[in-house]
Amino acid sequence: MPRFSKAVSSLRSSEIRDLMTLASRPDIISFAGGMPGNDLFPVSEVEELFRNLDMRKKQAAFQYGPTHGLPSLLESLRGFLEKKGLPVHDNRLLVTTGSLQAISLLAKAFIDPGDPVIVENPCFIGALSSFKSHEADLRGIAVDSEGIAIDELSGEIRRTPHAKFLYITPYFHNPAGLLYSGERKESLVSALQGRDIPIIEDDAYGDLYFHPEDAGRLKPLKAINPEGIDICYTGSFSKILGPGLRLGWMLVPEEIYCKCELIKQSADACSPSYTQVLADEFIRSGLIYPYIEKVRQEYQTRANAMVAALKRSMPDYVRWNDPRGGFYLWLTLPEGTDSTEILKLAIEGGAVFVVGKTFDPAGRSNNTMRLSYCNNSPAEIEEGIPVIAEAVKMVCG
Amino acid sequence: MPRFSKAVSSLRSSEIRDLMTLASRPDIISFAGGMPGNDLFPVSEVEELFRNLDMRKKQAAFQYGPTHGLPSLLESLRGFLEKKGLPVHDNRLLVTTGSLQAISLLAKAFIDPGDPVIVENPCFIGALSSFKSHEADLRGIAVDSEGIAIDELSGEIRRTPHAKFLYITPYFHNPAGLLYSGERKESLVSALQGRDIPIIEDDAYGDLYFHPEDAGRLKPLKAINPEGIDICYTGSFSKILGPGLRLGWMLVPEEIYCKCELIKQSADACSPSYTQVLADEFIRSGLIYPYIEKVRQEYQTRANAMVAALKRSMPDYVRWNDPRGGFYLWLTLPEGTDSTEILKLAIEGGAVFVVGKTFDPAGRSNNTMRLSYCNNSPAEIEEGIPVIAEAVKMVCG
Repeated sequence: MPRFSKAVSSLRSSEIRDLMTLASRPDIISFAGGMPGNDLFPVSEVEELFRNLDMRKKQAAFQYGPTHGLPSLLESLRGFLEKKGLPVHDNRLLVTTGSLQAISLLAKAFIDPGDPVIVENPCFIGALSSFKSHEADLRGIAVDSEGIAIDELSGEIRRTPHAKFLYITPYFHNPAGLLYSGERKESLVSALQGRDIPIIEDDAYGDLYFHPEDAGRLKPLKAINPEGIDICYTGSFSKILGPGLRLGWMLVPEEIYCKCELIKQSADACSPSYTQVLADEFIRSGLIYPYIEKVRQEYQTRANAMVAALKRSMPDYVRWNDPRGGFYLWLTLPEGTDSTEILKLAIEGGAVFVVGKTFDPAGRSNNTMRLSYCNNSPAEIEEGIPVIAEAVKMVCG
Repeated sequence: MPRFSKAVSSLRSSEIRDLMTLASRPDIISFAGGMPGNDLFPVSEVEELFRNLDMRKKQAAFQYGPTHGLPSLLESLRGFLEKKGLPVHDNRLLVTTGSLQAISLLAKAFIDPGDPVIVENPCFIGALSSFKSHEADLRGIAVDSEGIAIDELSGEIRRTPHAKFLYITPYFHNPAGLLYSGERKESLVSALQGRDIPIIEDDAYGDLYFHPEDAGRLKPLKAINPEGIDICYTGSFSKILGPGLRLGWMLVPEEIYCKCELIKQSADACSPSYTQVLADEFIRSGLIYPYIEKVRQEYQTRANAMVAALKRSMPDYVRWNDPRGGFYLWLTLPEGTDSTEILKLAIEGGAVFVVGKTFDPAGRSNNTMRLSYCNNSPAEIEEGIPVIAEAVKMVCG
């Protein structure tokens, strides 16, 4: 009987995996996964970019690279991020094995067992798992349609001035789909001013906006660069190229970078050179820009199809966010509803989604459900949503 | 000033990085890196394998995969490992982001701060860093030309019956280059029998043998499958395809697998699908077997060139291992010699290597040096070794 460490003794497999197995069945329409549509990947373009490289660069794709990333990708990625107004020269950029690794490295850099960490409720499950595996004491703060609830946040900061950091996903939140308002970001900055609490700003979805007029709201806090607050900005190629490349990044102050690079040295030595070369060429060729434009439009089409289908088939008491970008619709059902009951019926009907408590730091609140529209055609959406609506009606009346 | 966790507060950058920067200078001959030669990578073969895939498989290369690995790679890799006699059906296989991630996941699964962990001295620096970043109390046991010193190991086990695991690299050890004898493996098993101490058996280099008659010595402990000892077997595509793919694996008992998979879920979600597809096709095409045969011969040529050059130019008091495979020659200088002094002079002469204390769990013993022959032509070796020999003579007389 192996004697496991305290940190992992309590880790239990989540229900997500069983759900994903189910979701891969051909007779099931899945709104569960947060993955891009397979049909959208720039397969041929990327293959041709690689084919046209000289042998020296191709060989480098097979070789170890520096822990912090291939120099050529760091340069092109800095250019990509600078266009968003990010302070790439006053901070250090670390390429990571997906942005989840960035979050995980930051978790290890900051969290000792029992340390309080403030998160949104609901919250990205990957971040929750990472913080839990470092034995954080999670403090969930509610979100509304404008962002994190400031009064509740301020109260939490007063009660736990030694919180190790605040983790937020302000741009097309996973799972809540919301986009922070400019005002809410200002209030957030005010609430943190003078406190010694860094922000982890997860911007995995920001490029996938549907409305160019949202540009102001999409400006990262890291770009606003408020005085006196350490901001660790994380991002990913997963939604703008492909998650199978496992490439993300963090843009962080020097001191935090140094710790995270050291941790990464013994976590996986470096991120895959092969896919770093592909991502670098995708940026340098300029193909990334029309590609992002293309997927934006496609996801907007899918989001619109899902909203239309929901309006047609859902009872009046079901509410959801207005999807202005990203992958997700977050449905709220009457207080006391158990969406696990709805899921069971939906599976019988041939459709799946993720129940709300999955994203609750405390694993309780379950009158919510996450529906992803990213991986389905409008036809599938029109077929699958009524199945879920029927299940809702059977449970809620 | 960020408040870092206790685990990372003490982490300091090693000198290895500066050395690697130096090693990349065109005017320096580097025997420092443990990386395959760029000229040896099967670039065109792998590119053609990908080109011939159908679109569905190419798209899957861009998509998330299961945390434990793509099903097709798990199947082909099981076949590859079964040929080594490994018990692939009674254990679980987990694809990892390089074998360093396998070691790192196991470290997190087992180590609480202060836990004793037994390692070889010298020891692979990546493993040392990983164990240190989990705050292990490292117990280094000397190795000789046959393997780990059994008396010393037995004494350590008596003193610390609660050691969390024993980490060994029996097949072309990094850095000591040694291959365990069959007898030593038997003694090791006896020493651990009846104890509750799992073994992490790192087999990153075992395929790179120069003498087919060593087959018996190369049989993994995991394949011998001794009763009552949990063996966590780790391996890598880094030396038999390319480290830039960042793919390794662990073959471990079910219970350990479950913990490691959970940890990996929040470490990087899954390993890169793109490179998993490439590795899978490399195995399935059968190209991996002649490729391994080719690199074996090439590394043997390089090893022979280095041994010949050492014999020609090193003073009598310098000793080294007989390289029967792998990447490394481990030089032992007279007691009390500081190889850092030698390195400084060698750099002036235009050649670099890694000083011995880098691999000492206690960071002290420094009358040793690691020379890699994996990444240099015989001509470079013949030019670089005399530079190092001169430096040795200047320091040791």
